Amino acid sequence: MATDPIHRLIGELSRLPGVGEKTATRLAFYILRQPKHYAKNLAQALHDVVEQVRFCSSCQNLTAVDPCQLCADPRRNEMIICVTESVQALRAIEHTSEFRGRYHVLHGALSPLDGIGPEELRIKELLLRLRQTPAEEIVLALNPTVEGDATALYLQKLIAPLGIKMTRLAYGVAVGSDLEYTDQATLTRAYLGRQLL
Amino acid sequence: MATDPIHRLIGELSRLPGVGEKTATRLAFYILRQPKHYAKNLAQALHDVVEQVRFCSSCQNLTAVDPCQLCADPRRNEMIICVTESVQALRAIEHTSEFRGRYHVLHGALSPLDGIGPEELRIKELLLRLRQTPAEEIVLALNPTVEGDATALYLQKLIAPLGIKMTRLAYGVAVGSDLEYTDQATLTRAYLGRQLL
Repeated sequence: MATDPIHRLIGELSRLPGVGEKTATRLAFYILRQPKHYAKNLAQALHDVVEQVRFCSSCQNLTAVDPCQLCADPRRNEMIICVTESVQALRAIEHTSEFRGRYHVLHGALSPLDGIGPEELRIKELLLRLRQTPAEEIVLALNPTVEGDATALYLQKLIAPLGIKMTRLAYGVAVGSDLEYTDQATLTRAYLGRQLL
Repeated sequence: MATDPIHRLIGELSRLPGVGEKTATRLAFYILRQPKHYAKNLAQALHDVVEQVRFCSSCQNLTAVDPCQLCADPRRNEMIICVTESVQALRAIEHTSEFRGRYHVLHGALSPLDGIGPEELRIKELLLRLRQTPAEEIVLALNPTVEGDATALYLQKLIAPLGIKMTRLAYGVAVGSDLEYTDQATLTRAYLGRQLL
C-alpha cells in the first residue's frame, strides 16, 4: 500500500503543519477531483520554489532574483535598515506601506535553550553590510518576546560602536483592542511609553 | 510579483479547501524551511497521483493498477457488491474489516438541484457489471441523506428486475452517542428498526 500514489500523497500532505491524516485524505481526494492541471500547477510551484528561491545576498530575504526586488529598488532609502526575525515579519511591515528603506532578515532570534546563538542568525551578514554601506538608522522590528528582546540587546551592543542610530518598534496597546483585556506587561509598556498630546 | 515563486506557491496552496491566504502563506514558508527533498517529494506525489491514478474498470474505485487491488483479490467474494457514493466511503467500510466482498463506487449521488442525474453517476457501469458477472446481494452503503435515499430508490427500481437481493446499511443511533442528543429523525429510524434481543 505504501507505493500506492494516493497513500503516498496523503502521507506527504500529512507532514504539513496542522494537517492530520483526516485533513490530508480530504485534500488528496479534493486534488483528485480537480482537473489534472491543478495538481500539476501545485507540483510545479513546489518544484520552482525550492529550485529558484534562495537568500538575497544583501538583505537575506527569500527571493528568486539576487539582489531581491526590495534591495534592487533604487527608490528605497538605503540609509535606513529595518531588521526583522523572519521573512513573514518583513512582509507584514511591507504591507503597512509605511517603511521605504531596506531590510535585513536575521532568520530567527537568539534562543540559547533552542541552541540558537549569534552564529545561527544572519548577524555577520548585517555587520558586513554596515561596513560596506553606511547606514543612518537601524530599526529593530523584532518580536516583543524574550528572544526578540535578547536579540535587540545583543545587536545594540554590537552596533553601538559604529555610531549608527538604533530604534525599535513602539510597544503599546494594539489598535482596536480593549484596555480591560490588555495584558499587564503590555499596559505597563504603554504607560511607560506614553506620548504627549 | 505574480511570477515570484513564493507568491505562486501561496496562490496554488490557497486554492485548497479550507486553506485561506494566511494558512497558505504559513504552509509555503514552512515548506521553504524544510530540506529541499520535502517539497520535491510532495511535488512528485502530486505528479504521480494525477498521472497514475485512474478509475478501476470494474468497480470504479481510484487506483494506480487496473483492476484495483480489491477487484484483483481472489479471496474476496464477488457475489456480494457494496455500492458507495465515494472512494472515501469505500475506504471507511474497508477499515471496518467487516466486509469481504467487492465494491462499486458511484462517484456521487442523485441530486437534480446540482444537475447530477443518473448519467453523471457510474450506474451504467454497475448494470454492465451485473450483466457480465452474476451477484447474489447488493449492499447499498449510501449516505443517509435525501440524495443517498433518492439514489437508493433509483437503484432499487433498476436492479429489482434482475432478481438480486438488495440491502442497505442499518439506520440507527451511533455507537457511543447520547440518546438525549440524538436527532429525532435518527431516533425514529432506530425505533422503527428495533431488533429482538
